[in-house]
Amino acid sequence: MPGDAAATRRRILDAAIAEFAEHGIAGARVDRIAAASGSNKALIYKYYGNKDRLFDAVFDTIVVQTMNDVPITADDLPGYAGRLWDWYQARPELLRLGDWDALERGGSGMAAEAARQAAAEKTEAIAEGQRRGLVAASVPPATLLGLLLAICRTNPVASVARETHREAVVTAVRRIVTITAKL
Amino acid sequence: MPGDAAATRRRILDAAIAEFAEHGIAGARVDRIAAASGSNKALIYKYYGNKDRLFDAVFDTIVVQTMNDVPITADDLPGYAGRLWDWYQARPELLRLGDWDALERGGSGMAAEAARQAAAEKTEAIAEGQRRGLVAASVPPATLLGLLLAICRTNPVASVARETHREAVVTAVRRIVTITAKL
Repeated sequence: MPGDAAATRRRILDAAIAEFAEHGIAGARVDRIAAASGSNKALIYKYYGNKDRLFDAVFDTIVVQTMNDVPITADDLPGYAGRLWDWYQARPELLRLGDWDALERGGSGMAAEAARQAAAEKTEAIAEGQRRGLVAASVPPATLLGLLLAICRTNPVASVARETHREAVVTAVRRIVTITAKL
Repeated sequence: MPGDAAATRRRILDAAIAEFAEHGIAGARVDRIAAASGSNKALIYKYYGNKDRLFDAVFDTIVVQTMNDVPITADDLPGYAGRLWDWYQARPELLRLGDWDALERGGSGMAAEAARQAAAEKTEAIAEGQRRGLVAASVPPATLLGLLLAICRTNPVASVARETHREAVVTAVRRIVTITAKL
Protein backbone atom coordinates (compact mmCIF):
# COMPACT_ATOMS: atom_id res chain seq x y z
CA MET A 1 0.00 0.00 0.00
CA PRO A 2 1.30 3.51 -0.82
CA GLY A 3 0.86 4.71 2.77
CA ASP A 4 2.92 1.85 4.09
CA ALA A 5 5.59 2.40 1.45
CA ALA A 6 5.81 6.09 2.35
CA ALA A 7 6.09 5.25 6.04
CA THR A 8 8.82 2.70 5.31
CA ARG A 9 10.76 5.19 3.22
CA ARG A 10 10.48 7.74 6.02
CA ARG A 11 11.79 5.22 8.56
CA ILE A 12 14.68 4.34 6.27
CA LEU A 13 15.55 8.02 5.78
CA ASP A 14 15.40 8.71 9.52
CA ALA A 15 17.68 5.75 10.22
CA ALA A 16 19.99 6.85 7.40
CA ILE A 17 20.24 10.39 8.81
CA ALA A 18 21.39 8.98 12.15
CA GLU A 19 23.79 6.46 10.58
CA PHE A 20 25.42 8.93 8.15
CA ALA A 21 25.64 11.63 10.83
CA GLU A 22 27.47 9.25 13.16
CA HIS A 23 29.77 7.43 10.75
CA GLY A 24 29.97 9.50 7.56
CA ILE A 25 29.44 8.15 4.06
CA ALA A 26 32.34 5.67 3.85
CA GLY A 27 31.75 4.50 7.43
CA ALA A 28 27.96 4.09 7.17
CA ARG A 29 26.60 0.53 6.93
CA VAL A 30 23.42 -0.17 5.00
CA ASP A 31 22.74 -3.24 7.14
CA ARG A 32 22.68 -1.06 10.26
CA ILE A 33 20.23 1.29 8.52
CA ALA A 34 18.10 -1.73 7.58
CA ALA A 35 18.11 -3.01 11.17
CA ALA A 36 17.36 0.41 12.70
CA SER A 37 14.46 1.02 10.33
CA GLY A 38 12.94 -2.46 10.62
CA SER A 39 13.57 -2.78 6.90
CA ASN A 40 16.03 -4.84 4.86
CA LYS A 41 18.95 -4.13 2.55
CA ALA A 42 17.13 -5.35 -0.59
CA LEU A 43 14.33 -2.85 -0.03
CA ILE A 44 16.76 -0.02 0.64
CA TYR A 45 18.63 -0.78 -2.60
CA LYS A 46 15.33 -1.03 -4.45
CA TYR A 47 14.20 2.39 -3.18
CA TYR A 48 17.51 4.25 -3.31
CA GLY A 49 19.91 2.41 -5.63
CA ASN A 50 23.06 2.47 -3.53
CA LYS A 51 24.62 4.01 -0.43
CA ASP A 52 25.72 7.18 -2.23
CA ARG A 53 22.28 7.76 -3.69
CA LEU A 54 20.78 7.14 -0.25
CA PHE A 55 23.05 9.87 1.10
CA ASP A 56 21.81 12.17 -1.70
CA ALA A 57 18.23 11.42 -0.65
CA VAL A 58 19.09 12.17 2.98
CA PHE A 59 20.75 15.42 2.00
CA ASP A 60 17.82 16.47 -0.16
CA THR A 61 15.38 15.64 2.62
CA ILE A 62 17.09 17.71 5.28
CA VAL A 63 17.61 20.63 2.91
CA VAL A 64 13.95 20.70 1.94
CA GLN A 65 12.87 20.33 5.56
CA THR A 66 15.19 23.16 6.64
CA MET A 67 13.92 25.42 3.85
CA ASN A 68 10.31 24.72 4.78
CA ASP A 69 10.68 25.06 8.53
CA VAL A 70 13.16 27.95 8.52
CA PRO A 71 12.27 30.07 5.49
CA ILE A 72 14.71 32.84 4.68
CA THR A 73 13.47 36.36 5.43
CA ALA A 74 15.48 38.83 3.40
CA ASP A 75 13.89 41.77 5.23
CA ASP A 76 15.08 40.28 8.52
CA LEU A 77 18.32 38.33 8.02
CA PRO A 78 19.36 38.68 11.70
CA GLY A 79 16.08 37.06 12.74
CA TYR A 80 16.58 34.37 10.12
CA ALA A 81 20.08 33.73 11.49
CA GLY A 82 18.71 33.32 15.00
CA ARG A 83 16.03 30.86 13.87
CA LEU A 84 18.50 28.90 11.74
CA TRP A 85 20.93 28.75 14.66
CA ASP A 86 18.12 27.41 16.91
CA TRP A 87 17.28 24.84 14.24
CA TYR A 88 20.85 23.55 13.96
CA GLN A 89 21.40 23.57 17.71
CA ALA A 90 18.35 21.34 18.11
CA ARG A 91 19.60 19.08 15.29
CA PRO A 92 23.38 18.69 15.53
CA GLU A 93 23.14 15.72 13.16
CA LEU A 94 22.34 18.14 10.33
CA LEU A 95 25.60 20.00 10.88
CA ARG A 96 27.48 16.69 10.93
CA LEU A 97 25.88 15.56 7.65
CA GLY A 98 26.99 18.78 5.97
CA ASP A 99 30.51 18.37 7.35
CA TRP A 100 30.79 14.76 6.15
CA ASP A 101 29.58 15.83 2.73
CA ALA A 102 32.23 18.55 2.57
CA LEU A 103 35.01 16.21 3.70
CA GLU A 104 34.12 13.07 1.80
CA ARG A 105 32.67 14.51 -1.37
CA GLY A 106 34.07 18.02 -1.48
CA GLY A 107 30.61 19.43 -0.86
CA SER A 108 29.13 17.62 -3.83
CA GLY A 109 25.95 17.04 -1.85
CA MET A 110 25.27 20.38 -3.47
CA ALA A 111 25.01 18.43 -6.70
CA ALA A 112 21.76 17.11 -5.29
CA GLU A 113 19.00 19.05 -7.01
CA ALA A 114 17.16 20.17 -3.87
CA ALA A 115 20.32 21.46 -2.23
CA ARG A 116 21.37 23.41 -5.31
CA GLN A 117 17.88 24.81 -5.63
CA ALA A 118 17.82 25.83 -1.96
CA ALA A 119 21.14 27.65 -2.22
CA ALA A 120 19.96 29.43 -5.38
CA GLU A 121 16.70 30.50 -3.71
CA LYS A 122 18.44 31.81 -0.62
CA THR A 123 20.99 33.69 -2.72
CA GLU A 124 18.20 35.23 -4.79
CA ALA A 125 16.32 36.28 -1.65
CA ILE A 126 19.40 38.11 -0.42
CA ALA A 127 19.97 39.68 -3.85
CA GLU A 128 16.37 40.88 -3.82
CA GLY A 129 16.92 42.34 -0.34
CA GLN A 130 19.96 44.18 -1.67
CA ARG A 131 18.00 45.56 -4.65
CA ARG A 132 15.27 46.77 -2.31
CA GLY A 133 17.89 48.48 -0.11
CA LEU A 134 17.23 46.23 2.89
CA VAL A 135 20.63 44.53 2.90
CA ALA A 136 24.13 45.96 2.47
CA ALA A 137 24.99 45.50 -1.19
CA SER A 138 28.76 45.70 -0.90
CA VAL A 139 29.13 41.91 -0.66
CA PRO A 140 27.93 39.51 -3.40
CA PRO A 141 24.76 37.75 -2.21
CA ALA A 142 26.25 34.23 -2.44
CA THR A 143 29.23 35.35 -0.34
CA LEU A 144 26.94 36.99 2.22
CA LEU A 145 24.95 33.76 2.42
CA GLY A 146 28.16 31.79 3.01
CA LEU A 147 29.21 34.05 5.88
CA LEU A 148 25.74 33.93 7.41
CA LEU A 149 25.59 30.13 7.25
CA ALA A 150 29.09 29.81 8.76
CA ILE A 151 28.01 32.00 11.68
CA CYS A 152 24.80 30.01 12.16
CA ARG A 153 26.80 26.79 12.34
CA THR A 154 28.93 27.89 15.31
CA ASN A 155 28.52 26.14 18.64
CA PRO A 156 28.64 27.90 22.01
CA VAL A 157 31.79 27.37 24.08
CA ALA A 158 31.24 25.66 27.42
CA SER A 159 31.80 28.82 29.47
CA VAL A 160 29.16 30.89 27.64
CA ALA A 161 25.39 30.60 28.01
CA ARG A 162 23.54 29.41 24.91
CA GLU A 163 21.35 32.50 24.90
CA THR A 164 24.45 34.71 24.95
CA HIS A 165 25.87 32.86 21.96
CA ARG A 166 22.57 33.19 20.14
CA GLU A 167 22.55 36.94 20.72
CA ALA A 168 26.10 37.13 19.38
CA VAL A 169 25.02 35.28 16.22
CA VAL A 170 22.06 37.60 15.63
CA THR A 171 24.09 40.71 16.37
CA ALA A 172 26.96 39.62 14.12
CA VAL A 173 24.60 39.08 11.19
CA ARG A 174 22.82 42.37 11.91
CA ARG A 175 26.12 44.20 11.80
CA ILE A 176 27.19 42.49 8.59
CA VAL A 177 23.97 43.16 6.67
CA THR A 178 23.13 46.60 8.02
CA ILE A 179 23.62 49.39 5.54
CA THR A 180 25.97 52.02 6.83
CA ALA A 181 28.62 54.18 5.30
CA LYS A 182 30.61 54.27 8.48
CA LEU A 183 32.00 50.74 8.91
CA MET B 1 72.03 11.36 15.06
CA PRO B 2 69.62 13.94 16.53
CA GLY B 3 69.47 15.92 13.30
CA ASP B 4 68.48 12.84 11.35
CA ALA B 5 65.86 11.91 13.96
CA ALA B 6 64.36 15.40 13.80
CA ALA B 7 64.26 15.26 10.00
CA THR B 8 62.62 11.84 10.11
CA ARG B 9 60.00 13.05 12.60
CA ARG B 10 59.29 16.04 10.36
CA ARG B 11 58.87 13.79 7.32
CA ILE B 12 56.54 11.52 9.29
CA LEU B 13 54.46 14.51 10.45
CA ASP B 14 54.23 15.94 6.93
CA ALA B 15 53.09 12.58 5.57
CA ALA B 16 50.65 12.23 8.47
CA ILE B 17 49.15 15.68 7.80
CA ALA B 18 48.44 14.67 4.19
CA GLU B 19 47.11 11.21 5.13
CA PHE B 20 44.82 12.42 7.95
CA ALA B 21 43.58 15.37 5.85
CA GLU B 22 42.61 13.04 3.03
CA HIS B 23 41.17 10.07 4.93
CA GLY B 24 40.37 11.27 8.46
CA ILE B 25 41.45 9.50 11.63
CA ALA B 26 39.61 6.20 11.22
CA GLY B 27 40.44 6.04 7.52
CA ALA B 28 44.14 6.91 7.84
CA ARG B 29 46.64 4.07 7.40
CA VAL B 30 49.93 4.14 9.27
CA ASP B 31 51.56 1.99 6.60
CA ARG B 32 50.76 4.63 3.98
CA ILE B 33 52.31 7.28 6.26
CA ALA B 34 55.37 5.05 6.64
CA ALA B 35 55.70 4.60 2.89
CA ALA B 36 55.15 8.28 2.09
CA SER B 37 57.75 9.38 4.65
CA GLY B 38 60.36 6.77 3.73
CA SER B 39 60.00 5.52 7.29
CA ASN B 40 58.48 2.38 8.77
CA LYS B 41 55.58 1.55 11.06
CA ALA B 42 57.80 0.42 13.95
CA LEU B 43 59.57 3.78 14.01
CA ILE B 44 56.27 5.69 13.84
CA TYR B 45 54.90 3.71 16.77
CA LYS B 46 58.15 4.23 18.68
CA TYR B 47 57.96 8.00 18.16
CA TYR B 48 54.22 8.55 18.54
CA GLY B 49 52.70 5.57 20.33
CA ASN B 50 49.65 4.96 18.17
CA LYS B 51 47.54 6.46 15.38
CA ASP B 52 45.49 8.63 17.74
CA ARG B 53 48.57 10.06 19.43
CA LEU B 54 50.06 10.69 15.99
CA PHE B 55 46.94 12.69 15.12
CA ASP B 56 47.41 14.66 18.38
CA ALA B 57 50.99 15.40 17.33
CA VAL B 58 49.80 16.54 13.90
CA PHE B 59 47.15 18.75 15.46
CA ASP B 60 49.63 20.29 17.89
CA THR B 61 52.10 20.91 15.09
CA ILE B 62 49.70 22.75 12.83
CA VAL B 63 48.27 24.79 15.73
CA VAL B 64 51.73 25.92 16.83
CA GLN B 65 52.73 26.69 13.24
CA THR B 66 49.55 28.70 12.66
CA MET B 67 50.04 30.64 15.91
CA ASN B 68 53.65 31.43 14.99
CA ASP B 69 53.05 32.38 11.37
CA VAL B 70 49.71 34.18 11.87
CA PRO B 71 49.93 35.80 15.30
CA ILE B 72 46.71 37.35 16.57
CA THR B 73 46.63 41.13 16.60
CA ALA B 74 43.96 42.29 19.01
CA ASP B 75 44.38 45.90 17.88
CA ASP B 76 43.64 44.80 14.31
CA LEU B 77 41.30 41.81 14.29
CA PRO B 78 40.06 42.51 10.73
CA GLY B 79 43.68 42.37 9.50
CA TYR B 80 44.22 39.19 11.50
CA ALA B 81 41.12 37.68 9.90
CA GLY B 82 42.43 38.50 6.43
CA ARG B 83 45.82 36.93 7.14
CA LEU B 84 44.26 33.86 8.72
CA TRP B 85 41.93 33.47 5.74
CA ASP B 86 44.93 33.67 3.38
CA TRP B 87 46.72 31.05 5.50
CA TYR B 88 43.82 28.60 5.39
CA GLN B 89 43.16 29.19 1.70
CA ALA B 90 46.77 28.27 0.96
CA ARG B 91 46.50 25.19 3.22
CA PRO B 92 43.08 23.57 2.77
CA GLU B 93 44.44 20.45 4.49
CA LEU B 94 44.44 22.37 7.79
CA LEU B 95 40.72 23.06 7.49
CA ARG B 96 40.09 19.40 6.72
CA LEU B 97 42.10 18.25 9.75
CA GLY B 98 40.01 20.48 11.99
CA ASP B 99 36.80 19.16 10.45
CA TRP B 100 37.82 15.51 10.86
CA ASP B 101 38.72 16.23 14.47
CA ALA B 102 35.31 17.79 15.07
CA LEU B 103 33.46 14.91 13.40
CA GLU B 104 35.43 11.94 14.65
CA ARG B 105 36.42 13.12 18.10
CA GLY B 106 33.90 15.85 18.87
CA GLY B 107 36.65 18.45 18.66
CA SER B 108 38.76 16.69 21.27
CA GLY B 109 41.87 17.66 19.34
CA MET B 110 41.41 20.62 21.62
CA ALA B 111 42.44 18.27 24.40
CA ALA B 112 45.91 18.46 22.87
CA GLU B 113 47.88 20.84 25.05
CA ALA B 114 49.11 23.14 22.28
CA ALA B 115 45.64 23.57 20.81
CA ARG B 116 44.09 24.36 24.19
CA GLN B 117 46.89 26.79 24.91
CA ALA B 118 46.47 28.48 21.53
CA ALA B 119 42.73 28.95 22.03
CA ALA B 120 43.33 30.36 25.52
CA GLU B 121 45.96 32.79 24.24
CA LYS B 122 43.77 34.03 21.40
CA THR B 123 40.80 34.43 23.74
CA GLU B 124 42.96 36.40 26.19
CA ALA B 125 44.25 38.63 23.39
CA ILE B 126 40.67 39.49 22.44
CA ALA B 127 39.72 40.04 26.11
CA GLU B 128 42.68 42.40 26.46
CA GLY B 129 41.55 44.25 23.33
CA GLN B 130 38.11 44.61 24.89
CA ARG B 131 39.58 45.95 28.16
CA ARG B 132 41.63 48.47 26.19
CA GLY B 133 38.53 49.60 24.31
CA LEU B 134 39.78 48.36 20.93
CA VAL B 135 37.18 45.63 20.47
CA ALA B 136 33.43 45.66 21.03
CA ALA B 137 32.92 44.20 24.50
CA SER B 138 29.29 43.14 24.11
CA VAL B 139 30.25 39.58 23.10
CA PRO B 140 32.29 37.22 25.35
CA PRO B 141 35.84 36.95 23.94
CA ALA B 142 35.67 33.16 23.39
CA THR B 143 32.42 33.60 21.46
CA LEU B 144 33.89 36.41 19.39
CA LEU B 145 36.87 34.17 18.59
CA GLY B 146 34.52 31.38 17.50
CA LEU B 147 32.64 33.69 15.12
CA LEU B 148 35.89 35.09 13.72
CA LEU B 149 37.34 31.61 13.10
CA ALA B 150 34.12 30.43 11.43
CA ILE B 151 34.26 33.41 9.06
CA CYS B 152 37.96 32.79 8.32
CA ARG B 153 37.20 29.18 7.40
CA THR B 154 34.70 30.05 4.65
CA ASN B 155 35.57 29.28 1.03
CA PRO B 156 34.72 31.54 -1.90
CA VAL B 157 31.89 30.39 -4.15
CA ALA B 158 32.85 29.70 -7.76
CA SER B 159 31.16 32.81 -9.12
CA VAL B 160 32.99 35.24 -6.82
CA ALA B 161 36.62 36.36 -7.10
CA ARG B 162 38.87 35.28 -4.24
CA GLU B 163 39.86 38.88 -3.51
CA THR B 164 36.19 39.84 -3.23
CA HIS B 165 35.60 37.04 -0.73
CA ARG B 166 38.67 38.10 1.24
CA GLU B 167 37.36 41.66 1.44
CA ALA B 168 34.01 40.34 2.66
CA VAL B 169 35.77 38.36 5.42
CA VAL B 170 37.78 41.38 6.57
CA THR B 171 34.76 43.70 6.40
CA ALA B 172 32.53 41.24 8.28
CA VAL B 173 35.04 40.95 11.12
CA ARG B 174 35.55 44.73 11.15
CA ARG B 175 31.81 45.25 11.53
CA ILE B 176 31.53 42.66 14.28
CA VAL B 177 34.39 44.00 16.38
CA THR B 178 33.95 47.72 15.79
CA ILE B 179 32.60 49.60 18.76
CA THR B 180 29.45 51.47 17.92
CA ALA B 181 26.27 52.24 19.74
CA LYS B 182 24.25 52.24 16.57
CA LEU B 183 24.20 48.60 15.41
